[in-house]
Amino acid sequence: MMQFFIDDVIKTALLEDVNYIDMAADNLLPDSHTSKAVFLAKADGVLCGIDVALRVFELLGSFTLKKLKSDGDLIQKGDIIAEIEGPTKLLLKGERTSLNLIQHMSGIATMTYEAAELIKGTNATVTDTRKTLPGLRALQKYAVTCGGGKNHRFNLSDAAMLKDNHIDACGSITKAVSTLREKIGHTVKIEVETRTLDEVAEALATGCEIIMLDNMDCETMKKAVEMTDGKALLEASGNITASTIRSVAETGVDIISIGALTHSVKAFDISLKVVK
Amino acid sequence: MMQFFIDDVIKTALLEDVNYIDMAADNLLPDSHTSKAVFLAKADGVLCGIDVALRVFELLGSFTLKKLKSDGDLIQKGDIIAEIEGPTKLLLKGERTSLNLIQHMSGIATMTYEAAELIKGTNATVTDTRKTLPGLRALQKYAVTCGGGKNHRFNLSDAAMLKDNHIDACGSITKAVSTLREKIGHTVKIEVETRTLDEVAEALATGCEIIMLDNMDCETMKKAVEMTDGKALLEASGNITASTIRSVAETGVDIISIGALTHSVKAFDISLKVVK
Amino acid sequence: MMQFFIDDVIKTALLEDVNYIDMAADNLLPDSHTSKAVFLAKADGVLCGIDVALRVFELLGSFTLKKLKSDGDLIQKGDIIAEIEGPTKLLLKGERTSLNLIQHMSGIATMTYEAAELIKGTNATVTDTRKTLPGLRALQKYAVTCGGGKNHRFNLSDAAMLKDNHIDACGSITKAVSTLREKIGHTVKIEVETRTLDEVAEALATGCEIIMLDNMDCETMKKAVEMTDGKALLEASGNITASTIRSVAETGVDIISIGALTHSVKAFDISLKVVK
Amino acid sequence: MMQFFIDDVIKTALLEDVNYIDMAADNLLPDSHTSKAVFLAKADGVLCGIDVALRVFELLGSFTLKKLKSDGDLIQKGDIIAEIEGPTKLLLKGERTSLNLIQHMSGIATMTYEAAELIKGTNATVTDTRKTLPGLRALQKYAVTCGGGKNHRFNLSDAAMLKDNHIDACGSITKAVSTLREKIGHTVKIEVETRTLDEVAEALATGCEIIMLDNMDCETMKKAVEMTDGKALLEASGNITASTIRSVAETGVDIISIGALTHSVKAFDISLKVVK
Amino acid sequence: MMQFFIDDVIKTALLEDVNYIDMAADNLLPDSHTSKAVFLAKADGVLCGIDVALRVFELLGSFTLKKLKSDGDLIQKGDIIAEIEGPTKLLLKGERTSLNLIQHMSGIATMTYEAAELIKGTNATVTDTRKTLPGLRALQKYAVTCGGGKNHRFNLSDAAMLKDNHIDACGSITKAVSTLREKIGHTVKIEVETRTLDEVAEALATGCEIIMLDNMDCETMKKAVEMTDGKALLEASGNITASTIRSVAETGVDIISIGALTHSVKAFDISLKVVK
Amino acid sequence: MMQFFIDDVIKTALLEDVNYIDMAADNLLPDSHTSKAVFLAKADGVLCGIDVALRVFELLGSFTLKKLKSDGDLIQKGDIIAEIEGPTKLLLKGERTSLNLIQHMSGIATMTYEAAELIKGTNATVTDTRKTLPGLRALQKYAVTCGGGKNHRFNLSDAAMLKDNHIDACGSITKAVSTLREKIGHTVKIEVETRTLDEVAEALATGCEIIMLDNMDCETMKKAVEMTDGKALLEASGNITASTIRSVAETGVDIISIGALTHSVKAFDISLKVVK
Repeated sequence: MMQFFIDDVIKTALLEDVNYIDMAADNLLPDSHTSKAVFLAKADGVLCGIDVALRVFELLGSFTLKKLKSDGDLIQKGDIIAEIEGPTKLLLKGERTSLNLIQHMSGIATMTYEAAELIKGTNATVTDTRKTLPGLRALQKYAVTCGGGKNHRFNLSDAAMLKDNHIDACGSITKAVSTLREKIGHTVKIEVETRTLDEVAEALATGCEIIMLDNMDCETMKKAVEMTDGKALLEASGNITASTIRSVAETGVDIISIGALTHSVKAFDISLKVVK
Repeated sequence: MMQFFIDDVIKTALLEDVNYIDMAADNLLPDSHTSKAVFLAKADGVLCGIDVALRVFELLGSFTLKKLKSDGDLIQKGDIIAEIEGPTKLLLKGERTSLNLIQHMSGIATMTYEAAELIKGTNATVTDTRKTLPGLRALQKYAVTCGGGKNHRFNLSDAAMLKDNHIDACGSITKAVSTLREKIGHTVKIEVETRTLDEVAEALATGCEIIMLDNMDCETMKKAVEMTDGKALLEASGNITASTIRSVAETGVDIISIGALTHSVKAFDISLKVVK
Repeated sequence: MMQFFIDDVIKTALLEDVNYIDMAADNLLPDSHTSKAVFLAKADGVLCGIDVALRVFELLGSFTLKKLKSDGDLIQKGDIIAEIEGPTKLLLKGERTSLNLIQHMSGIATMTYEAAELIKGTNATVTDTRKTLPGLRALQKYAVTCGGGKNHRFNLSDAAMLKDNHIDACGSITKAVSTLREKIGHTVKIEVETRTLDEVAEALATGCEIIMLDNMDCETMKKAVEMTDGKALLEASGNITASTIRSVAETGVDIISIGALTHSVKAFDISLKVVK
Repeated sequence: MMQFFIDDVIKTALLEDVNYIDMAADNLLPDSHTSKAVFLAKADGVLCGIDVALRVFELLGSFTLKKLKSDGDLIQKGDIIAEIEGPTKLLLKGERTSLNLIQHMSGIATMTYEAAELIKGTNATVTDTRKTLPGLRALQKYAVTCGGGKNHRFNLSDAAMLKDNHIDACGSITKAVSTLREKIGHTVKIEVETRTLDEVAEALATGCEIIMLDNMDCETMKKAVEMTDGKALLEASGNITASTIRSVAETGVDIISIGALTHSVKAFDISLKVVK
Repeated sequence: MMQFFIDDVIKTALLEDVNYIDMAADNLLPDSHTSKAVFLAKADGVLCGIDVALRVFELLGSFTLKKLKSDGDLIQKGDIIAEIEGPTKLLLKGERTSLNLIQHMSGIATMTYEAAELIKGTNATVTDTRKTLPGLRALQKYAVTCGGGKNHRFNLSDAAMLKDNHIDACGSITKAVSTLREKIGHTVKIEVETRTLDEVAEALATGCEIIMLDNMDCETMKKAVEMTDGKALLEASGNITASTIRSVAETGVDIISIGALTHSVKAFDISLKVVK
Repeated sequence: MMQFFIDDVIKTALLEDVNYIDMAADNLLPDSHTSKAVFLAKADGVLCGIDVALRVFELLGSFTLKKLKSDGDLIQKGDIIAEIEGPTKLLLKGERTSLNLIQHMSGIATMTYEAAELIKGTNATVTDTRKTLPGLRALQKYAVTCGGGKNHRFNLSDAAMLKDNHIDACGSITKAVSTLREKIGHTVKIEVETRTLDEVAEALATGCEIIMLDNMDCETMKKAVEMTDGKALLEASGNITASTIRSVAETGVDIISIGALTHSVKAFDISLKVVK
């Protein structure tokens, strides 16, 4: 991501959080009063968003920043992630925005990491979806990669996913794929959503690059893997949880996509502690 | 919230999700192909965001919309929330953005409602915090009110919260509050964060309107309630969960603020189902 | 106010004033031609906006800036407020925008100061209103504080003011306040607009924090002060001028709000004089 | 001005004034509660901004609007300018923004009209300057035309004004004008600022289209008029007030430019009165 | 493309072209004066942008629009493309912006069509590149599809193209592709730029989806086609003109990408003629 | 043009071209990998846009830039225009955007230069029009001046051009001009479009500053020049090409305006070559 893109996200957040002035800090603290503070991990997980969190303060004023951990690092409760020193007034003004970002991003990275760990040794990789929060897709998808997951398509333009509504409107999977091929560019992959093995077979015959196995049980998915035999990538999708992910992965599918990685994020606890 | 403000949030989300074109729908579906669909509850909870979710489609084209449930309504798995009919191409283009919004907002409303139910009959009310997601504060805070909670301050300008850093810099709670009173306008309340009963006592003596009891145990909070005797509002804060909230409320505090309402949202399951 | 917020206001102003190029300066002056100039006070008053005025030039290019007076300082005709040196081409390009801002802000600060001086020794403070100019509220309200006034609410979200239309719709002051109390957060104060002493009495009984005395004569306001006896803050409002403000303040009201501070501003004369 | 340009100004103003919600109206008034109101003149003057003021409400929701007076009309205290009917909640939400705009614009139109009346019968016309408020130039310059004045250049790109700094840098008026002529397009006029009759003579010899007489006394201006004899337009500028404008006009100058029209605006009193 | 996205492009263009007012039309034409006009083809080619061109007027005011030709239609000199009727003042205000858009888009569609015609009957398709004009990529790429071409990747995120700099940094094509495969999502295709048959062979062995043949002569490309034997898509690139395109296509490559389609556009002549 | 204005154009272009990440560079190149590259001319012409092209990289990160040629310089195939050194990842990310801008701008400058050379020694100057591309007018008009042309009006506000529609609506050229004179400011020139010598005569009599000779043959234009005798500027307009421009210029007209300079631009070939 480009710095000025991230800066715009941060500025939006700061304007939302400050609006006019910081009623307490701006009225109580002289410009000359400075503080040191540390970003402190309050739990174990994967760090994500430290550059964004520190950038908040650079956009507010003049700070000395020292990064001790990087995005993607495993961190433990008690770890100092970064040190920061600068005007107390601005430190307090940026604190909430900075923490809101790093906690959300680290929450995503940590959840992704946990899912990826559960399927270690299998062929499958954990992938996100388009179930993201408005305005935050880039940050959320980046956090998934920090946790060891991969990104599904970024938007509706960069891959073509055929769902039942498209297929119904065209008459069949076969017709839908061939119509699409005639129109889309050569860099765009086609993914077909299937619900039965018959549909998998039909999709396979079209030569589409990816087949989604939507809400299938593991037995069915195993059969789909056999039928496919590497001729297309297989993506398992639909309410896959920590307790089911391993068995899904062991069916031999290539991708396991999980909406919760970005739509149901638990903030990861990091605090900004002033050092006296 | 003003309609054009919400429209801007939606447009940002749509641009992020579509970018150029919907590679599948725009290439496969003629403009004349229309569909009916319903917003369907897949769980029990409190609805929030249906107006926003429907507005997505109005911004994309010409749809017939029928709202069967309203924001704040209790809904049950299987309930039809709204009906929508229009061009299939645009229905598919807006689907993800629409669901991302309503699922997030209903998730907040539902979690708030559950917290509020747990303290029913006590004096306390559930309140949100500034621990929101960038760009989404207004929608998130609105969702809290739909779930039966109340809003804490919207930003740093509309109330003055004194934290230990402010107090340290001024010398004492007493000095910090009096300095502040001389500077802030008459519409701004002062809230003082306290960690001990001595601090509560000092805060009380300043005549500040609100005292936050930060991470205190219930015994201490009860004493704070007694000491205060209605002369200030008391806000309990700090890692309050479903299993502790009732006992916190029974201490007699006025407000229980919970960051998780907006920083750790579980998407509420609602689908957009095409009706054949 | 955050620097990047102010920068946006300045950039909007510069784009409006320059649009494409500075037809004279860009065609006549080489990049290497530099000039020194001073911001010169042409009248007596209170300075406001010098940081904003200097920032205009930092956004245009590389300048040496030296600030001799600060926002809130009393200045006299002939005072040099700041010195500036840099490319003449950019100096001329930013001159008008810079002066438009500092003259407007110093005009507000000066008028506020004059009002505050008139009521010195009384209990009352001068306060602004929401009668501001589109896009300029933050700068205008900041200027009021530089002149020794205080800020009324910043927007419709951060305090609740009950006017006759709200009260009519609810049935009575009492009902309106109690309905509102049930809905608004604990950080929001309620102010009730009154026109008679009966209304003051009813407002007082609701426990609202602030009572506005709308267009009352001084006799009536004195009685309102007696009735209230410190149980609520009293705000006098309505066409208060230099000739009436002292007697209003002597009634014992707490706040005197004056729309003219921001809606009828007389630019304070400051020039940017090139030093040969 | 294009409607969507004006809409952006209004939306900026509304967001600034409302931010999240209207704490009073949104919590007290049902969507179904409607009111009638009238825009009422509280003084005599020239109306400007009624379309903008009414547009505020169209952007907020569904209103019935009836315009009884138009921009540029002379209005008298007590005149009903427009009638408006719609949801009370939205009426209150838009009231302040609407009035802030129409009062500012009518203030400019009225002041311009008064200046224009004072020089009736002479050859001179009243003109504005670039001394406008950030973001409001288009609305302010439009208001000047409604009051019977004319617009000076809109920005630095559409006419070239040579000031002493440009001239110093080039060596002489003659050189500055000839250098400029070689570079600027054929649609751009050149105006030269002069302080003495010698400068007027030199400017005249260059064939520049406009000569500004900067802070000259009336005697000198009369001589400049004679010297010029219609070969260039003459613009009088510099602290021209109601008491001096007539004598300035009678010197025979073509244009009298007045910064105060836009930098020192007195709001024109118009109220929005709910009709019971 | 979504309507509000296009509207933003149009508004930007209108603001750039009008800025404050239309000095001639706004001062000369009464609101009530209406005109009829037709969009008239002044050459033969492929139409593109008629919806955008008509939308300009809808954004300005109330017009009656009648579209006689659609995007992608072959048109001939003299054809009436659309009829439009509405306020003359707004017709003149929007004319230039409307024509600038439709002429540029039809120029692209026509040039693409001509290229596609030249290779009719071969296996190859004409494709655009990222050599587009700032802010206009979506409109330009859409125009290419109207002319019968296909779109290459829309941006750097939706396909991975390996150029010599990437390959040098990684050590070899083989290493670069395998490193990339481990990191990118399953929906992203890899394209490898090659300059020699050895590189083609190496790329082919990596299993990459697309191989670009950069500036190769036809003989070499024929050999590449043989070597590849359908195992990857082949894209010919590099200064392909009307005189060489047929022989390039006949080598058997799949895609011919042409930067000139979007970077060297000749406006297609369409006028807006008022009908008396 | 102001730097922050150009920065906005560049950021728009970068966001369009990158969107989320550079799929190849961001996944393959470490932050520490740096490269040197040169901007290399691949043809003869006039350079324009080198500052803009280099600025792209400054907005992306930390680069060492060395400019060897400046805007307006004549360059030859093989010339090194600038050297650049910095992170390879960012070099590749900015390459396309940078080249798209400099190639377009140099294309305009070169075409303008060629036209200007053709009429050397005559009285006429080459001028652009409002036939520009949306969002790019300022850059395009600047490029025209680098090529030795002059700018026509920048927008509809800064000069008044009377076309037949305006004239028809007013009754005659004479009436249209006199109506306009009464309304427009003193800095605005009037240009009248004419098709016959009778119209030229009528326009001349109004005292308008500029007369456009629309699509006249050279004989007629010569007569117009004689009739006018320097009393107005004459602008030749309408499909003037390289083969006709000299004879048009030799009629004695003052200005020759050419839409193709900005509406039909041929990109000028410049490459960014990594130096090993």
